[in-house]
Amino acid sequence: MHTSWLQSAASVPDWLTRQMDVRGGEVALETESVRWTYRELGERAGQAAGVLAGFGVAPGDRVALVAQRPEVVVLAVHAAVQRGAILVPVNWRLSAREIAWQLEDAGISLLICDDAQRALASAVAEQGPGTWPVWDVSQPWPDASAVFRDRIELDAVQAILYTSGTTGHPKGAMITYGNFLASALASALQLGVLPGDRWLVPMPLFHVGGLSVLMRSLIYGTTAVAHERFSAEAVNRAIDEGGITLVSVVPTMLSRMLAGRGTPYPERLRCVLLGGSYAPKPLLERCQALGVPVAQSYGLTEATSQVCTLLPQDGLRKLGSSGKPLLPTEIRVVCEGRPAAPGEPGEIIVRGPTVTPGYWRRPDATANAIRDGWLYTGDIGYLDEEGYLYVLDRRTDLIVSGGENIYPAEVENAIAAHPGVLEAAVVGETDPEWGQVPVAFVVPVRPGAVDEANLRAHLEGRLARYKVPKRFVWMEQLPRNASGKLLRRSLREWLVSSTSR
Amino acid sequence: MHTSWLQSAASVPDWLTRQMDVRGGEVALETESVRWTYRELGERAGQAAGVLAGFGVAPGDRVALVAQRPEVVVLAVHAAVQRGAILVPVNWRLSAREIAWQLEDAGISLLICDDAQRALASAVAEQGPGTWPVWDVSQPWPDASAVFRDRIELDAVQAILYTSGTTGHPKGAMITYGNFLASALASALQLGVLPGDRWLVPMPLFHVGGLSVLMRSLIYGTTAVAHERFSAEAVNRAIDEGGITLVSVVPTMLSRMLAGRGTPYPERLRCVLLGGSYAPKPLLERCQALGVPVAQSYGLTEATSQVCTLLPQDGLRKLGSSGKPLLPTEIRVVCEGRPAAPGEPGEIIVRGPTVTPGYWRRPDATANAIRDGWLYTGDIGYLDEEGYLYVLDRRTDLIVSGGENIYPAEVENAIAAHPGVLEAAVVGETDPEWGQVPVAFVVPVRPGAVDEANLRAHLEGRLARYKVPKRFVWMEQLPRNASGKLLRRSLREWLVSSTSR
Repeated sequence: MHTSWLQSAASVPDWLTRQMDVRGGEVALETESVRWTYRELGERAGQAAGVLAGFGVAPGDRVALVAQRPEVVVLAVHAAVQRGAILVPVNWRLSAREIAWQLEDAGISLLICDDAQRALASAVAEQGPGTWPVWDVSQPWPDASAVFRDRIELDAVQAILYTSGTTGHPKGAMITYGNFLASALASALQLGVLPGDRWLVPMPLFHVGGLSVLMRSLIYGTTAVAHERFSAEAVNRAIDEGGITLVSVVPTMLSRMLAGRGTPYPERLRCVLLGGSYAPKPLLERCQALGVPVAQSYGLTEATSQVCTLLPQDGLRKLGSSGKPLLPTEIRVVCEGRPAAPGEPGEIIVRGPTVTPGYWRRPDATANAIRDGWLYTGDIGYLDEEGYLYVLDRRTDLIVSGGENIYPAEVENAIAAHPGVLEAAVVGETDPEWGQVPVAFVVPVRPGAVDEANLRAHLEGRLARYKVPKRFVWMEQLPRNASGKLLRRSLREWLVSSTSR
Repeated sequence: MHTSWLQSAASVPDWLTRQMDVRGGEVALETESVRWTYRELGERAGQAAGVLAGFGVAPGDRVALVAQRPEVVVLAVHAAVQRGAILVPVNWRLSAREIAWQLEDAGISLLICDDAQRALASAVAEQGPGTWPVWDVSQPWPDASAVFRDRIELDAVQAILYTSGTTGHPKGAMITYGNFLASALASALQLGVLPGDRWLVPMPLFHVGGLSVLMRSLIYGTTAVAHERFSAEAVNRAIDEGGITLVSVVPTMLSRMLAGRGTPYPERLRCVLLGGSYAPKPLLERCQALGVPVAQSYGLTEATSQVCTLLPQDGLRKLGSSGKPLLPTEIRVVCEGRPAAPGEPGEIIVRGPTVTPGYWRRPDATANAIRDGWLYTGDIGYLDEEGYLYVLDRRTDLIVSGGENIYPAEVENAIAAHPGVLEAAVVGETDPEWGQVPVAFVVPVRPGAVDEANLRAHLEGRLARYKVPKRFVWMEQLPRNASGKLLRRSLREWLVSSTSR
């Protein structure tokens, strides 16, 4: 289905047990509350894998994770691997109903949570078919013999990561061990790797951006440093005093880190990997003025994070570009079925060993997204004369708010479910703090049939808070083209012009 | 036949044409006489590939290389790749007769040489079946259209590297593109890689140690720096002033580099990769005293260089060890068919994606060396309690002199070919300059039937100069055990005791 590279019927020695042996005394993970060597992490993960087995989790079973503490996420990731179970990490900012939908789709047999998300996990479990068993890792663990694995089959699925499609329900992208390995190796060649590297992730680990840092650090045998919540001050302190060599952030975070900062970062900070949304040009210019080694990247869940990354040294010459594809990923921009000319926008398509084999139990969606080995991303961009990628739209219509993806169709569906609403359209509005925020254009069934308060009450619990539109604009009808297709672009243009007025 | 990892039916975008695109302006190669960017190297290589095609070289054909200038070696390596031909790089320190044997075995269709080895190449060509065509790259090139390739099949053979077996004639180890890729990635994770790396190889590039540095630099998109001849002064200058971050040397070279040196090396020198033979403990201790980041390694041609490497930070604690295997290579030590206990010597066996698929047209030798996916190295060593490898004998009886392998059986055969010789045994004697030198124990057919001058004259032209024994010891008979097997060990012991007397 896709061009393989590392992917094949091949197997490799298990990464964690291998690092326990080769680098047992080196630090695997640092969070605000723990500091685990590879040996300690491995022993805990093996123990936790034993608990999974005790819960009846068999290899190939899906296990959900609703946890906020980074050390619990890391433990669950490795426990699932040692047990051979497929992890479904959940965005705990979603509503219980949204999460339950995903877990039912994945067909999970256990829900792992921590103390911070115990309440949400219980609410989710209630919504399952019957009730899903919940293991709260913060409670004393049941007795179990440790379980370790010896080898990893690279073609096996390690995790299912749900990405909301533009067309409604989320789809579970299957990420294999081989995907993570290829991504880790490709990233190493692009950004470099050193035995003493310490990679900071000050963001939730359930996204591919965070998860792939954990897997990279494991494969490299280096240290992952995770902060539970983003704090600009804590990140700056970790960089200044905590020996951080790489850090993954989204533009909003980087803005805050640089706000009011006068001193340069230490030289050992090799790379600030910027992903998740558009990087505003003024921010990139500020980085250059301050000597921040920022590497803008373009990536997506279905390609296990980075696809293209612009190296810091190219930053000035190619401001605003996401760079060139990582070896051995290939990209093309296609326009009406043919390769686009340099400078001509089209759909970005991606091929290579980091590309998902497909969506969980969605052969139709898979066949639609992956054709001839190429992943059709739905994202719009162009290549310049030198082959540098410029991304114009992170998927058509996608709204990226503070690093979180918001798919208009999903929000529109929730709004339209209110009996007083005829139809709705949601677009992103530029926001100095969040990059973008959602704004809804709503057509009521009749004037006065619904007001903002009704609608907000209706959306609460149906949608994660960050997806709820920041404002509502009442309309008599939505702009559509001759064939009835919604003209979102004209709504965005209206927002820009109404703001600048 | 062996456990695959990167190896499969997979293909990747061609490395050189990819780097021309992605890093066209970065420096690919520096030698005493040239400085080529990836674009320049690529254009020359494509042109040279066109010349190969003009000589009638088809994909899959073998092409020999007898060249001393590093830029010619690099060009030939890449030209062969672009044409899809299999390169047979030749040790130009061998005699014309020895080389001709290898080239006839490989079935070459063209011999590439440079001005420095033109005479040797002509002498070799004369010995071919008919006469092999010779392309002297230093002469003006014939007209040809450039040839470029698009993708690389990882299972395809890139090079055949001849290694003299202990039992006589050399065998051609087939090294695939996948072997080089796996080796490059494994080395990157062990030693680190940075986009600005500059790796110095002050030794001949026909060995796997030099060749693998070229392939790594290509795959990483970093700079290879090659010196035609080793000069301690030039190497030190390149490290001090030329921005070198890694350097590959054998112990003899490192000794000379450190002789009389007082100043420490710059911090950017990340790794002195030590291979090729035993590293004497006093040398390693000296490195530690001077803060030289030395990484002792164990490798072999059949595993595309590094198998195990001891990181500089472990050097003190594990002095004399070659460290642990690179991810994803596996090693075991076996003794009489069972895994050896910690500390117990046995044969080192190696499995993983860097291991050759076998010897060129030698299914018998291949089946003997690779069993159940494990390469039986013939080298003797042991693992300590923590799994660190200590190599005792680089192959049983192998003599390593100044980084060159000398196989006793080959020298013995050459000596025994003299009509005045009944039998001969060759062993290595410790030498402060070369590590080891060969010493011959010779039994004449009758006393006075042959003298040293006769024998030296006989060996000239038959053997490379470094293989000719440094001294000859006349004996009435050779020591043998009850079943008639030669006791080389007792000859070595005799040498040690006679020297210390």
